[in-house]
Amino acid sequence: MTMATPQTRTRPTVNSDMGEGIGLHRFGNDPELLQVVDLANVACGFHAGDPDIMSATVAGAVAHGVRIGAHPSLPDQWGFGRRAMVLTPEEVESLVRYQVGALTGFLLQHGAELHHLKPHGSLYGMVAKDPALMESVAAVAADYGVAVLGMAGTAHEAVCAERGVPFVAELYVDLDYNAEGGLIIQRTPHATDPGAAAERVAQALEQGTVRAEDGTELPMRFESVCVHSDASGAPAVARAVREAIDAHVPAG
Amino acid sequence: MTMATPQTRTRPTVNSDMGEGIGLHRFGNDPELLQVVDLANVACGFHAGDPDIMSATVAGAVAHGVRIGAHPSLPDQWGFGRRAMVLTPEEVESLVRYQVGALTGFLLQHGAELHHLKPHGSLYGMVAKDPALMESVAAVAADYGVAVLGMAGTAHEAVCAERGVPFVAELYVDLDYNAEGGLIIQRTPHATDPGAAAERVAQALEQGTVRAEDGTELPMRFESVCVHSDASGAPAVARAVREAIDAHVPAG
Amino acid sequence: MTMATPQTRTRPTVNSDMGEGIGLHRFGNDPELLQVVDLANVACGFHAGDPDIMSATVAGAVAHGVRIGAHPSLPDQWGFGRRAMVLTPEEVESLVRYQVGALTGFLLQHGAELHHLKPHGSLYGMVAKDPALMESVAAVAADYGVAVLGMAGTAHEAVCAERGVPFVAELYVDLDYNAEGGLIIQRTPHATDPGAAAERVAQALEQGTVRAEDGTELPMRFESVCVHSDASGAPAVARAVREAIDAHVPAG
Amino acid sequence: MTMATPQTRTRPTVNSDMGEGIGLHRFGNDPELLQVVDLANVACGFHAGDPDIMSATVAGAVAHGVRIGAHPSLPDQWGFGRRAMVLTPEEVESLVRYQVGALTGFLLQHGAELHHLKPHGSLYGMVAKDPALMESVAAVAADYGVAVLGMAGTAHEAVCAERGVPFVAELYVDLDYNAEGGLIIQRTPHATDPGAAAERVAQALEQGTVRAEDGTELPMRFESVCVHSDASGAPAVARAVREAIDAHVPAG
Repeated sequence: MTMATPQTRTRPTVNSDMGEGIGLHRFGNDPELLQVVDLANVACGFHAGDPDIMSATVAGAVAHGVRIGAHPSLPDQWGFGRRAMVLTPEEVESLVRYQVGALTGFLLQHGAELHHLKPHGSLYGMVAKDPALMESVAAVAADYGVAVLGMAGTAHEAVCAERGVPFVAELYVDLDYNAEGGLIIQRTPHATDPGAAAERVAQALEQGTVRAEDGTELPMRFESVCVHSDASGAPAVARAVREAIDAHVPAG
Repeated sequence: MTMATPQTRTRPTVNSDMGEGIGLHRFGNDPELLQVVDLANVACGFHAGDPDIMSATVAGAVAHGVRIGAHPSLPDQWGFGRRAMVLTPEEVESLVRYQVGALTGFLLQHGAELHHLKPHGSLYGMVAKDPALMESVAAVAADYGVAVLGMAGTAHEAVCAERGVPFVAELYVDLDYNAEGGLIIQRTPHATDPGAAAERVAQALEQGTVRAEDGTELPMRFESVCVHSDASGAPAVARAVREAIDAHVPAG
Repeated sequence: MTMATPQTRTRPTVNSDMGEGIGLHRFGNDPELLQVVDLANVACGFHAGDPDIMSATVAGAVAHGVRIGAHPSLPDQWGFGRRAMVLTPEEVESLVRYQVGALTGFLLQHGAELHHLKPHGSLYGMVAKDPALMESVAAVAADYGVAVLGMAGTAHEAVCAERGVPFVAELYVDLDYNAEGGLIIQRTPHATDPGAAAERVAQALEQGTVRAEDGTELPMRFESVCVHSDASGAPAVARAVREAIDAHVPAG
Repeated sequence: MTMATPQTRTRPTVNSDMGEGIGLHRFGNDPELLQVVDLANVACGFHAGDPDIMSATVAGAVAHGVRIGAHPSLPDQWGFGRRAMVLTPEEVESLVRYQVGALTGFLLQHGAELHHLKPHGSLYGMVAKDPALMESVAAVAADYGVAVLGMAGTAHEAVCAERGVPFVAELYVDLDYNAEGGLIIQRTPHATDPGAAAERVAQALEQGTVRAEDGTELPMRFESVCVHSDASGAPAVARAVREAIDAHVPAG
């Protein structure tokens, strides 16, 4: 394994899922997170987000200079998009097109451009494993001319490469990896220790690895670090990640 | 106006809307409120609540000896049931029957009985003004043999009286009254000062009046005090209400 | 294999999924089917059915002396409940309790009793394969004291037997069986030839077998024949089934 | 009243609401209607339409050279968008932006452009009466640079004029007008006599009037004739309208 050379490395971005409220409900972390992250993955109404929240979230991201991506999901508010469904590639494509399109309605409202596409929750996991489903996501990204955020070494990356869709590999700091490099998706959010998150980023930047749940050291390529917004303490985690990046890959 | 005579007065109950989460979202006040209130009005899935939350809410109420009522709503999660809709009496009846029935599924699970029925949000307001719509609510309550919680002097009370449905008049401590005695329903929750809530209860118990937003002193009959669960500080408000009741109408 | 002896056989019932409209949409077969079937499995709002339709469907069944069961589904109108989801047993139980409870709201309205429980679409298939999920369905049936309709030889039957829940085995005439006896569930309805349906019933009654898609003759125990209501020609299929039953197992 | 002069008149288009199925449900008229109409108002998922149906509807319209508009609605599938709701202008704007955006996702997929915007059902009626709500619709149309279809003499027209948004006045042939020129919106579809529809078009083209329900002759300006797709017989009505137009305003 080659060690990453920080001085020549592209500085990773920090991305966060945002606008994941419903009606009166909010996780409450978005205002602080907008001050820290580079990329906002905006919920599009299927797992969370509603038209008013989407408009406000886009407005907030624009005000903070945060680039905006679509965060489409399976249609499942009760399960927060974290319960896999058996869908055809055509169905995945229609679901994604609907939600990405809906988001562009608010981008037009607030004078912003679509920057990227990142599937949410179980959809993210489903298209990581199934290239036929990932084709559907890549087709939408290709039509909009935007990158897909995903996991290196999965169908996310392979299908994007095949279709010439830009791909941005992610590191997760608030989910565990299994020994095969897969994410252990949790149905309900849990608090993450900011120090542990910073350490994971530091190790990934310095050694190009991440420690799996069972202690295995996995090789890890990434250009963006994801911080979920639905856990308490998310802003502190995001700030810790930002500082770890700053310490290893100075801006400019 | 006759002053209420505390020593002979029936002790008012405290009721609260509960289980108003959706998926991962919660207002967070239910666990504390369950320790204070007498009656839980359980959300039935249309403005909030989902099957898992309903089951957990009923279980919690049973564990705390809190009596359980249905809190049916207009079908509007994004607006939290606080946006009026034009419906026929038949539609209102079907919406209410569906939701009350759904709740009984969880009452059966946890060995509880339906205790009352209280329409939520704009449905509450709609049936207060329109006796034809209130007939639909009263018909459901009659079939289940339970009381309706509502506002004295409105169609809530009049229709229940006509149909022989038990009626429990409510006092609100976290919403303002207009000069005509109507509630000023707010779309989003706001914090209520526990001291002001206690004072309103005290005045209502001592003088049988409540002060409207414009200073008018309104006559106020009530047998239950409602504390909303969607505002921060709701448990403190509920405790203040409880103490005011205890001070004026000693238990036993 | 023992041949069935028609003269001593219990006369099978005919059951049909009903009330599967949404808003203005109807499949249009319910009025005719109500004149033929013994059991109506009423959609409960998650794959189809809405409160007004549920009320009207129950009223229609009562008027025709058709016994009424709940037909709960995964929460998926777009996929008509025919797209499997990964759910926990607790989630399945809550979904089923919610929907069965909702239906009882309309049974109370129209003076009817719950007669049975039959999961819909992919939920039916999921609980046929997974005893832990089937436990959830059986628990609800046990609490209501009603039978479950399902497939002989699957977890439907095994779990009901274990828990002492009455079980009614079904024969399908408008879906194909694979060589293992599993149903080949189709996402969209197709027309069934009434003659072929009658023949399948006759063979099942005479020989206790059904011919799988690949020609295998499968043993088939059943006490009820299911006719789906979402295909054109459903009433003709139901009548053909009824006549085949009449010819082989005379009433009275 | 001035008589219209057919020979110099712009030939009216025929528009129809389309893609109003949900899951397996379809009204069944779209394939025939696509052969007759000029403009398709595509349902965007809130009263009807789902992502798969939207994609198929756009594909069909493109194949037939039919121009495509968005047909956003109140969020109410059970009421088919025909039950008014009390909404703020901000909420209306968000609802419309969400749905129009969603549609553009499928326009991009099939290489089509957004041609117009026409609110559905009660939203259409609400914004006809309330200029503040109509501002929201006009703002979206302005951002997309498309025309609004609506009723002459209402806020539809007035607000579009004020904001410089192109406006296309509609004539209805399957709904009645009241004496004030308002549409009598019906909750459920009814069959329209094609001959009566043709006659209404002929009178409107020849005399510039339409007969209200009570016999009043109302002045009627229009550039497009609407035929609803949810009534049986809609294709015959559309063809009759087309022939009436052809007879009075020859193409070319």
